[in-house]
Amino acid sequence: MKLWEKGIAVDKEVEAFTVGNDYLLDQRLVEFDCIASIAHSKMLGKINVLTKSEVAQLEKGLNEIIALSKSGKFQISKQDEDCHTAIENYLTEKYGDVGKKIHTARSRNDQVLTALRLYEKHELQQVKKLVAEMQNTLQTAIKNQGSVKMPGYTHMQRAMPTTVATWLGSFQDALADDLQLLDATFTLVDASPLGTAAGFGVPVLEIDREFTAKELKFAKLIKNPIYAQLSRGKLESSFMHSLTQVMLTLNKLATDLTLFSTTEFSLVSLPENMCTGSSIMPQKKNPDVLELVRAKYHVVLAEEFKVKSIIANLPSGYNRDLQLTKEPLFTSIDTTEQSLKIMSLLVKQVKINESNCTKSLTRELFATEEAYKLVKKGVPFREAYRQVAQSLKEKK
Amino acid sequence: MKLWEKGIAVDKEVEAFTVGNDYLLDQRLVEFDCIASIAHSKMLGKINVLTKSEVAQLEKGLNEIIALSKSGKFQISKQDEDCHTAIENYLTEKYGDVGKKIHTARSRNDQVLTALRLYEKHELQQVKKLVAEMQNTLQTAIKNQGSVKMPGYTHMQRAMPTTVATWLGSFQDALADDLQLLDATFTLVDASPLGTAAGFGVPVLEIDREFTAKELKFAKLIKNPIYAQLSRGKLESSFMHSLTQVMLTLNKLATDLTLFSTTEFSLVSLPENMCTGSSIMPQKKNPDVLELVRAKYHVVLAEEFKVKSIIANLPSGYNRDLQLTKEPLFTSIDTTEQSLKIMSLLVKQVKINESNCTKSLTRELFATEEAYKLVKKGVPFREAYRQVAQSLKEKK
Amino acid sequence: MKLWEKGIAVDKEVEAFTVGNDYLLDQRLVEFDCIASIAHSKMLGKINVLTKSEVAQLEKGLNEIIALSKSGKFQISKQDEDCHTAIENYLTEKYGDVGKKIHTARSRNDQVLTALRLYEKHELQQVKKLVAEMQNTLQTAIKNQGSVKMPGYTHMQRAMPTTVATWLGSFQDALADDLQLLDATFTLVDASPLGTAAGFGVPVLEIDREFTAKELKFAKLIKNPIYAQLSRGKLESSFMHSLTQVMLTLNKLATDLTLFSTTEFSLVSLPENMCTGSSIMPQKKNPDVLELVRAKYHVVLAEEFKVKSIIANLPSGYNRDLQLTKEPLFTSIDTTEQSLKIMSLLVKQVKINESNCTKSLTRELFATEEAYKLVKKGVPFREAYRQVAQSLKEKK
Amino acid sequence: MKLWEKGIAVDKEVEAFTVGNDYLLDQRLVEFDCIASIAHSKMLGKINVLTKSEVAQLEKGLNEIIALSKSGKFQISKQDEDCHTAIENYLTEKYGDVGKKIHTARSRNDQVLTALRLYEKHELQQVKKLVAEMQNTLQTAIKNQGSVKMPGYTHMQRAMPTTVATWLGSFQDALADDLQLLDATFTLVDASPLGTAAGFGVPVLEIDREFTAKELKFAKLIKNPIYAQLSRGKLESSFMHSLTQVMLTLNKLATDLTLFSTTEFSLVSLPENMCTGSSIMPQKKNPDVLELVRAKYHVVLAEEFKVKSIIANLPSGYNRDLQLTKEPLFTSIDTTEQSLKIMSLLVKQVKINESNCTKSLTRELFATEEAYKLVKKGVPFREAYRQVAQSLKEKK
Repeated sequence: MKLWEKGIAVDKEVEAFTVGNDYLLDQRLVEFDCIASIAHSKMLGKINVLTKSEVAQLEKGLNEIIALSKSGKFQISKQDEDCHTAIENYLTEKYGDVGKKIHTARSRNDQVLTALRLYEKHELQQVKKLVAEMQNTLQTAIKNQGSVKMPGYTHMQRAMPTTVATWLGSFQDALADDLQLLDATFTLVDASPLGTAAGFGVPVLEIDREFTAKELKFAKLIKNPIYAQLSRGKLESSFMHSLTQVMLTLNKLATDLTLFSTTEFSLVSLPENMCTGSSIMPQKKNPDVLELVRAKYHVVLAEEFKVKSIIANLPSGYNRDLQLTKEPLFTSIDTTEQSLKIMSLLVKQVKINESNCTKSLTRELFATEEAYKLVKKGVPFREAYRQVAQSLKEKK
Repeated sequence: MKLWEKGIAVDKEVEAFTVGNDYLLDQRLVEFDCIASIAHSKMLGKINVLTKSEVAQLEKGLNEIIALSKSGKFQISKQDEDCHTAIENYLTEKYGDVGKKIHTARSRNDQVLTALRLYEKHELQQVKKLVAEMQNTLQTAIKNQGSVKMPGYTHMQRAMPTTVATWLGSFQDALADDLQLLDATFTLVDASPLGTAAGFGVPVLEIDREFTAKELKFAKLIKNPIYAQLSRGKLESSFMHSLTQVMLTLNKLATDLTLFSTTEFSLVSLPENMCTGSSIMPQKKNPDVLELVRAKYHVVLAEEFKVKSIIANLPSGYNRDLQLTKEPLFTSIDTTEQSLKIMSLLVKQVKINESNCTKSLTRELFATEEAYKLVKKGVPFREAYRQVAQSLKEKK
Repeated sequence: MKLWEKGIAVDKEVEAFTVGNDYLLDQRLVEFDCIASIAHSKMLGKINVLTKSEVAQLEKGLNEIIALSKSGKFQISKQDEDCHTAIENYLTEKYGDVGKKIHTARSRNDQVLTALRLYEKHELQQVKKLVAEMQNTLQTAIKNQGSVKMPGYTHMQRAMPTTVATWLGSFQDALADDLQLLDATFTLVDASPLGTAAGFGVPVLEIDREFTAKELKFAKLIKNPIYAQLSRGKLESSFMHSLTQVMLTLNKLATDLTLFSTTEFSLVSLPENMCTGSSIMPQKKNPDVLELVRAKYHVVLAEEFKVKSIIANLPSGYNRDLQLTKEPLFTSIDTTEQSLKIMSLLVKQVKINESNCTKSLTRELFATEEAYKLVKKGVPFREAYRQVAQSLKEKK
Repeated sequence: MKLWEKGIAVDKEVEAFTVGNDYLLDQRLVEFDCIASIAHSKMLGKINVLTKSEVAQLEKGLNEIIALSKSGKFQISKQDEDCHTAIENYLTEKYGDVGKKIHTARSRNDQVLTALRLYEKHELQQVKKLVAEMQNTLQTAIKNQGSVKMPGYTHMQRAMPTTVATWLGSFQDALADDLQLLDATFTLVDASPLGTAAGFGVPVLEIDREFTAKELKFAKLIKNPIYAQLSRGKLESSFMHSLTQVMLTLNKLATDLTLFSTTEFSLVSLPENMCTGSSIMPQKKNPDVLELVRAKYHVVLAEEFKVKSIIANLPSGYNRDLQLTKEPLFTSIDTTEQSLKIMSLLVKQVKINESNCTKSLTRELFATEEAYKLVKKGVPFREAYRQVAQSLKEKK
């Protein structure tokens, strides 16, 4: 039964359309919604809307659901619409009237905001951990093969000499900037919407929002209830932007590795057990992992724009459009985490082809060096540049 | 077993990452891949690569798979990677050596292109049918309530009088343009890639591509095998653009209906059994269907841009990135078809509030008419305009 | 003076903000707006709103403006807001009262729609011509160097042998599909909005819309005036999609040429007079043209997304948001035309490095051929595949 | 003369295509490039590549250019390509050989990175100031009219009572979050790329990067030279994301005001001197400013997408594609600053229609309150909810 049903049956096709796959997506929010519900019950106890024993019953029930959910046994049905309803229905069924009281002084609107923010805080920590791991993997690769000299490219043309350490180090530094952005996102996420209800606060009852915020370890309170609603999608788009940044770093690394592992470049070799083959060409050894990581940047990018596009041109207050910001967020988080893991695995096994790297350091790469040697002798740079260019041309 | 496995075990995590959810997505291609495989087998028979009885065996096996697939009993496993492998494995398991021969003179590359184009032709017909149904629904609504006069808006401000027939008719005409684009897309799709193999044709064997194209009812042949690969994603993005256009038409209709059904506008009433409620506010009757249709335009839009972004900056020939263009296509097709269905259902039950429409036809809406009356009497338009403006100002 | 001014001065900053750079953008519409205005005047003459001599005066004035505009001497000022106002003001200033009559029975809304569609028809012809030229350039290149054999790539790895003719031919075929889409767009554009006024038609006066449509050589009439407004932006987005498709073809060609002209691949050489250098590295010869063409695909893509995003979630009838769809359209057209021209110029001078192409045809490229030779001898394909794979492995 | 010209004339059309409008865009970087060049010259003096008097000459020349630029008299020509070349050419022309020395130990690559980051730091301060002003404007509006009660909406349907203070306050809080993101962006921007040259550092000469970083007031150094290149576009996309967030806040405010100022809602009145009219309808008073602000969100969004799309799938090191990230950044900054200014101006003059707000507080808005009153009496919430819903239905 839906939380808002009051006698008029909703068309079946409307139900299917409006619920969509929300009941499946919500599985990952169950745990966080229960945690928030426990804090909410305690608060209702504190302000005497619930008795101590009611609070205890609810806490027990909600912990049961958390346990069931962790073992994959708490399934939200299509009829339930979402995790909030499934949870309330479970409580009512098992514990009677107390279940009907849990929704006092809150709305699904602030409930989902709270569950989402708790989930987001959790996932931000996960992503940060994986980024740090990726940095370590790069560090190990640098330790092992960093001193090898290789050509640096601009415009995909050989430019100047560099080293494997500098090349791989650039990704470490990019990830360091990405971490900084993830931290900035965390600060935005870390504010409690619980108690803003449907965006207009809770009348009549005197709830204690500081209490729930503290229980849930939020750093602060979102005071303005309309702002809590305004942040929906907006906040997610900032989260997704920081994921796009991580994926952009991986996109460049994957692009480099794909190019450098072609027969023609041969600067690196990919681990054979991480390549796939062709159904028709017996000789093929394809860098599918790298290609997919490269492509998945665009997936995360498009999901970010989906959210940023959905939430525009909408007036204040909750609009159902916002429901569709959930899946893009989940997709982006999953994609980024998987990509970080697989790239870390792959980079661990990449082999630098030292002799090919050395062979590629052809004379023209040192043209800038030659020019600077002339500068040291007092030739103005622009003239030294032209002299070297001329001499290279003649030697061809 | 994968089609390309040759002794080196692929890392489990790599398998999971590269296959992704492709094995699930491919379920909807099974039928089309079998149809194409039957045509391919017949052709192999025609050029004496297969015997008549081998062709018959394969046809039998493939028809079995089609039947299993239709009843939901042909499941592609993760280990199979995709529908092509699952089908070849089924045939080899059940019919022995002949299964190992089916892949002669083709690659998974032209196979998936063929299956996709057959699927796309099928879905284009479905979408066209649903668009026509939506046009009919609008026609019925116009027949019933079209003569009601209502304000026309520009800048969301009352502008000039119009009728329900003109308002709803504009969506019919938009859908007519959308149909034209769907037809143009169909023409692009209707060309056979079968026999282009991995993008470089089939050496040694003299295959008959005209034969398979005809068997599969393609209007023509894609002759250049590299172009067959180049079309991947590119073609899908054109398909998706035509779906975006349909969704844009629905987005505007949904936006109008949401606005016109507010308490403040009250020009139309939505069917109660197609509205949903709030978990906290007992009085609410929300136009969720319309809001979701509105938002789903952005989903389809973002999926289109996902594909258009994935396929860029890639050199010629198949790149694994292209695998990720499949899901966006499917999502767009499903979303558009569902949205057309639900909007048709809803529009059938929308009620025009005739008396409110009439009440809204306030005097200022006739200002242009007044100006033209002066024009008829010989006043230059720009002067008539200023006179009417002045008179309206005084009457305020 | 603005067409709608009636005594209340608009804030200067508001004027600057709302006009934006529209007065500059509109320069390219002047000619088309005049052509449409001549047709409109003639029609007003036909229905006796204007006298014959008034029509003659207006036609004279409008032709003056066309001539001035062609020689760059008709400048729209910021105060005029747009071309429509500049034109009306010119006529009123020079020819008196008759200028005040030209706006009878039309609105800037249908005026801009008409001017845009005339402009779009013109530019579609231009783009088509340039696409055909590009196809010819490719044809010449194929004639000259098409028979050279080169490696075909999948996953950026050497796959199977192909020829320059097949490789370059794939772009010809892609452009053929692009032409088809441009034609489909032309059909959508080729309908007259003139006479739909502000989206609600023209009251009181009996205008002859068929007459103006015929004068302007439109294939048909947009009958529903609200649909004329609904098409704004929607139509442009379809135009832009077809441009994106052309740019996608060029993006892939540019990507190939950039890769194939690296020192490592060296399959092609770029004309020296079309490369640029580095300010620091004297030896550099950079393929900037190709890199910019590659990047400009994303420009056109983003402009398309801009339009598709601006026009969503807006209710029926003109909304000022639509003004911002003009610049993206112009940018896309200019970018595509310039890119086609420069790529045609460049491809004419690309040199295939025949000996490098041949050297790159290493043995593994013929693995599929070897497998098919075994198939011809009766070995089932999948077994032949495994035998060849094994033999390649041993020979390494 | 171009910095890299060495005897081979570049095709004129290639020059036009590659330079594009870069020479115009670069006008705004002249000042920042000169500031960086002064620091660079001083450093070259410090390490004895330049004499004291050469440094003095360069400083004099560069300050001249800054002064010329500020008064609009330093024009970059198409032949110069960009600001870096125009500046070097000016110095060489006026001060002879010393001009040819300024480019020692740097590349245009690190030059543009440095100029851009200095420019970005400057603009971030501007945007922050304008955001703070907007917050103040909202604060004043709240002080004046904040106590007025008005309906809060969800799903565009009347939901619960709220106040003007809460409604407008939500935008203040959104802007506070936006400021936080702008600060995070500032931290990312605030690192010196000067001395990373073309992405591979400076050989032979022992430059002092800490010195220039300190001179230019950068908080830290980008140590890895390849990372300096990797940050191009990536950093800008983060800047643009933070601008998109600001515009999103304005988009919602504009959407609310457009809706609330319709005849039907009439909760607010817009200042007449900030509205525009229609060319055909004498009565119209259109909220063009709001519509354009709403639309400009999509402009900024698409420009962000443009940059994020351009920079993907590119290998390490500078690629000319990156040149095209400059214009989107400038467009986004200009658009955001202009939109903040105009919205601040407009909000100052918005009038709340107190009596209409009160009239709109119809009984159903208090349904939640009624339910909570029952809860206070001990009725479980879900039952209270159903009782109130029933009672509302009966009273209809």
